[in-house]
Amino acid sequence: MMPPDTPSIVLVRPQLAENVGTAARAMMNCALTDLRMVMPREDWLADKAIAAASGAEAVLRQARAYDSTEAALADCHRVYATTARRREMIKPVMTPRHAAGVIRDAAGRGERCAVLFGPERTGLENDDVAMADAVVEVPLNPAHSSLNLAQAVLLVGYEWFQAGIDRPPVELSASGAEKADRAMLMTFFRHLEAELDACGFLRNADKRPGMVRNLRSLFGRADLTVPEVRTLHGVVKELRWGRRPDRPKRVEGGVPTPWAGDNEE
Amino acid sequence: MMPPDTPSIVLVRPQLAENVGTAARAMMNCALTDLRMVMPREDWLADKAIAAASGAEAVLRQARAYDSTEAALADCHRVYATTARRREMIKPVMTPRHAAGVIRDAAGRGERCAVLFGPERTGLENDDVAMADAVVEVPLNPAHSSLNLAQAVLLVGYEWFQAGIDRPPVELSASGAEKADRAMLMTFFRHLEAELDACGFLRNADKRPGMVRNLRSLFGRADLTVPEVRTLHGVVKELRWGRRPDRPKRVEGGVPTPWAGDNEE
Repeated sequence: MMPPDTPSIVLVRPQLAENVGTAARAMMNCALTDLRMVMPREDWLADKAIAAASGAEAVLRQARAYDSTEAALADCHRVYATTARRREMIKPVMTPRHAAGVIRDAAGRGERCAVLFGPERTGLENDDVAMADAVVEVPLNPAHSSLNLAQAVLLVGYEWFQAGIDRPPVELSASGAEKADRAMLMTFFRHLEAELDACGFLRNADKRPGMVRNLRSLFGRADLTVPEVRTLHGVVKELRWGRRPDRPKRVEGGVPTPWAGDNEE
Repeated sequence: MMPPDTPSIVLVRPQLAENVGTAARAMMNCALTDLRMVMPREDWLADKAIAAASGAEAVLRQARAYDSTEAALADCHRVYATTARRREMIKPVMTPRHAAGVIRDAAGRGERCAVLFGPERTGLENDDVAMADAVVEVPLNPAHSSLNLAQAVLLVGYEWFQAGIDRPPVELSASGAEKADRAMLMTFFRHLEAELDACGFLRNADKRPGMVRNLRSLFGRADLTVPEVRTLHGVVKELRWGRRPDRPKRVEGGVPTPWAGDNEE
């Protein structure tokens, strides 16, 4: 028996072994492992299925086939049917995101959940949908909403996986480099500004305070690390004191070349 | 020019035309239409690509190829690189869900956004990632996080699509049938209880109030429609007054057949 905390994926009458394989791969992507099939047409351990599973062979090996949807669902407490079109049935229709939360909550109470997916071209029959507590419908472009089997499994599994992780929506990639502290930043700012004073970039006394603020703000936004601040010290030093090419010539008409820096507006 | 409100999908050095086709299909599922490729190896209008696109041929027909990632991104204001593994680069790392919100916000300010996807086996090179403002990483099973190209496009596009719709997470499928009002429900409850009194199911006076409450609550949860309540009236009437089969026999040992209903506990 699988632990009830991961929902079962039930493929009803899947037609092609490759599609069972790619569905198994999508399950593995989302840490889902309990694959059930109702009357699969082909052998889900055929070479083409295992190749399509692309590393998720274990999911195929422990998959089970059943003679009926009812038999596949016997030990399940909650059943969700994925459909691409509305049926003449009165049932709650949920987004995969909402269903993911409901499934997580139910698993927390020890209830086993299953999600039904229909055959590749035709989708679930109404008798299968009738066995479900709710319908799961993926909100997609209404003009082109059909998904292949593995993609439908992936989107439902993806939402289930997201509902179970506690990951910050945005973080700075951990390079191991220490973030520069304010003292280090200020030392760099003073180095930069001293050289900009010396080379004449900040010679306009009225504009100087605003320009300094803008430069500090620009570098401040970058969330600099210690090695990056060291690199910037080197950049400033070499720009000011390194070897110089011939001075760029102004083109005819007095338009400066783009890199002949100037602080006139 | 495409309107800036839908992000561009940029496939960097895609290897197989089929994969460009399935990526186009995934884009169409999510109402994305601006496909750009950097040095695609095969002809993206080959028959196998169009077959794989499965109805999204229009996306392939208006796709454009570029000689470099830089050229593909020239008119873009914000660039997101999808990667499966962390790089030695200091950049914000976002979930697709967070990136979807950022992209929607940026588009609202008229900024064009692009999402980069690398070649099938190798993923983006560091030079391509370096051109991005941020990295998008899909939270998936760490033991098996590799997605095929179309699936990566689908998950990013799916989140972008979800971020733009205003759909209730759960609703009752619209069958056109009117929901029963409380008066209609109460009439049904009284019919049911009268017949249950008459047949003896509610004969225990101490238990009766609790049993009635439970039955009312059970039917109340079902959000019944007018035709459903009419059906239930018929069910009760026919159960009570319809033709009767021979009484079920008790099996040896005194265990009742499961449907020989009884209200003893």
